[in-house]
Amino acid sequence: MAGEFQIISKIRERARPGERVAVGIGDDAAVISRNGSADLLACCDLMIEGIHFRLDWMPTDAIGRKALAVTLSDVAAMGGVPKFAMVSIALPRASSSEFASEVMRGVIEMSEASGVSLVGGDTSGSPGALFIDTSVIGECASGRAVTRAGARPGDRVFVTGSLGASMLGLNLLQGGHRLDQFMKDGAGESGDNMILRALRRHIFPEPRLKEGSLIGQASVASAMIDISDGLSSDLSHILQESRCGAVVNANALPVAACAKTLASSGMKIDPLNLALHGGEEYELLFTVPQKESDRLIELSRDFDEPVTMIGEIVERPGLYLDRDGALEVLDPSGYEHQI
Amino acid sequence: MAGEFQIISKIRERARPGERVAVGIGDDAAVISRNGSADLLACCDLMIEGIHFRLDWMPTDAIGRKALAVTLSDVAAMGGVPKFAMVSIALPRASSSEFASEVMRGVIEMSEASGVSLVGGDTSGSPGALFIDTSVIGECASGRAVTRAGARPGDRVFVTGSLGASMLGLNLLQGGHRLDQFMKDGAGESGDNMILRALRRHIFPEPRLKEGSLIGQASVASAMIDISDGLSSDLSHILQESRCGAVVNANALPVAACAKTLASSGMKIDPLNLALHGGEEYELLFTVPQKESDRLIELSRDFDEPVTMIGEIVERPGLYLDRDGALEVLDPSGYEHQI
Repeated sequence: MAGEFQIISKIRERARPGERVAVGIGDDAAVISRNGSADLLACCDLMIEGIHFRLDWMPTDAIGRKALAVTLSDVAAMGGVPKFAMVSIALPRASSSEFASEVMRGVIEMSEASGVSLVGGDTSGSPGALFIDTSVIGECASGRAVTRAGARPGDRVFVTGSLGASMLGLNLLQGGHRLDQFMKDGAGESGDNMILRALRRHIFPEPRLKEGSLIGQASVASAMIDISDGLSSDLSHILQESRCGAVVNANALPVAACAKTLASSGMKIDPLNLALHGGEEYELLFTVPQKESDRLIELSRDFDEPVTMIGEIVERPGLYLDRDGALEVLDPSGYEHQI
Repeated sequence: MAGEFQIISKIRERARPGERVAVGIGDDAAVISRNGSADLLACCDLMIEGIHFRLDWMPTDAIGRKALAVTLSDVAAMGGVPKFAMVSIALPRASSSEFASEVMRGVIEMSEASGVSLVGGDTSGSPGALFIDTSVIGECASGRAVTRAGARPGDRVFVTGSLGASMLGLNLLQGGHRLDQFMKDGAGESGDNMILRALRRHIFPEPRLKEGSLIGQASVASAMIDISDGLSSDLSHILQESRCGAVVNANALPVAACAKTLASSGMKIDPLNLALHGGEEYELLFTVPQKESDRLIELSRDFDEPVTMIGEIVERPGLYLDRDGALEVLDPSGYEHQI
């Protein structure tokens, strides 16, 4: 099968952008301008059993939560506020009506928690796997959408939250760990079990809606993306669209505590590798002109998540990792989903 | 599995409509109001291999065309104009990049023919079937969307085009007929082969975009829906939302010529039954207050399709068929897809 990026790039070449389409195919969301009033943002995301997740990995409502969360994250990555959602769901023939209700409960709870109105969708039987496609319509002030294309040499690279835990959670699920083992042990209560933390991070991603909309409103970022494919891949998307390069400082990366703790307690994992290449983090990765850095720091006092400066945009094309002063080429090993 | 209508009704009960949501879950499209400027319409539709179609039934690009066409039809059914589309597509692992290109060519050609900008989407592998979800954003003048809920006793019931050919085409496909048998025979050129006509009607549905937008602009209809489940089912949806009944005149139904011709030439089909219950017609079914009927007739001079008055809205709940003056209860035998 042709890869995801190949197909998108072909469609992008072929589809003529319309008159009011300020940003079309190829960014986190499309931007539609409307004579002076707020711009519309529109995006959608697939979540498919056997490709993006397995049914035995997560509570049924978490499937619905995550399906919507990842699409909300795309609106955050444009600096916008999600407003309306639709969900199309194809249910395996054998599934019960309780199963359908649980998936939808997750979608509805995530929409309510995010202030988003669920306005429509479609349902169908599926000949095989569970399929969910969520579409979200959001808004941002006219002309203020933060695309992937605005990074310039000298800009600082920032990321919200921490990195590596979601990929670690995925690896743990693939290795046989499950959320319910902690429910039984009662460890779910304490919250300090590092395996549980990694699993939860993968199963219950939280889109950075507050941070995204504050960054958008303040017009402080020159480019932004959410980390769905992995820091190295997603930063490469920014570099490609912005036609520049970047140096990431290995020591500055906010590696997730659970990855560091589990590595130091003997688990065979490479925390730096997880942080550099792990997907499905749904943290915001963005660039800020140097003269705006102070304003970002000021703004970030209202964030729920910390922000960390992890590198700098440079003129020379390519992505580089600075390890204690030695530069090496950082390969964008983005993953296209295949579980 | 729980039926489609059951699931939607449950979600509708549970999801709280938002502030600016004039029409939420349960109509052809959601209506979002925006302080004085045009209302937004939003809808999506699934098309899944093995549920809605089979790969050997249609040219690959026709899959993409139809997937978008049926969602555009939902915007027409609200009296709106489709503007922007997104497409999420999950491709079976074994499919070639040519296959993906052909599906997308169909989507792009249908979007261009409809004046719709393709602004985004998502692609993924599929563990089994081909899965397409299309989302469309449209517009209509503020407060002018035609819902399913406005029909009143005394209103006339109208339908565009003709009925029964799409279901006949489906039956012919299920019976082993294929488009390419006509390509080989050269009958594809003449256009008068009735089997070919029925097949084409099922495989290449044309949304009634011009008619829908003219009806919406003129504010001439009290309720409207597109015929996707079948006349009896879709009229029942209007009756349910409008809390009234209807009498359909059997003799007035615009039964498709191919159904009548094939029946009279000995094929075992019931043209009336096809016209009453056949799905995937994508004709517009709408009600018009009696005093507006003349205005509709005037308006319809600009339609590409004929309109036919097929019945009347009545106070008494229920759906009735008038056969030469004798009333019988008409059972809404809508079909939930299962091929």
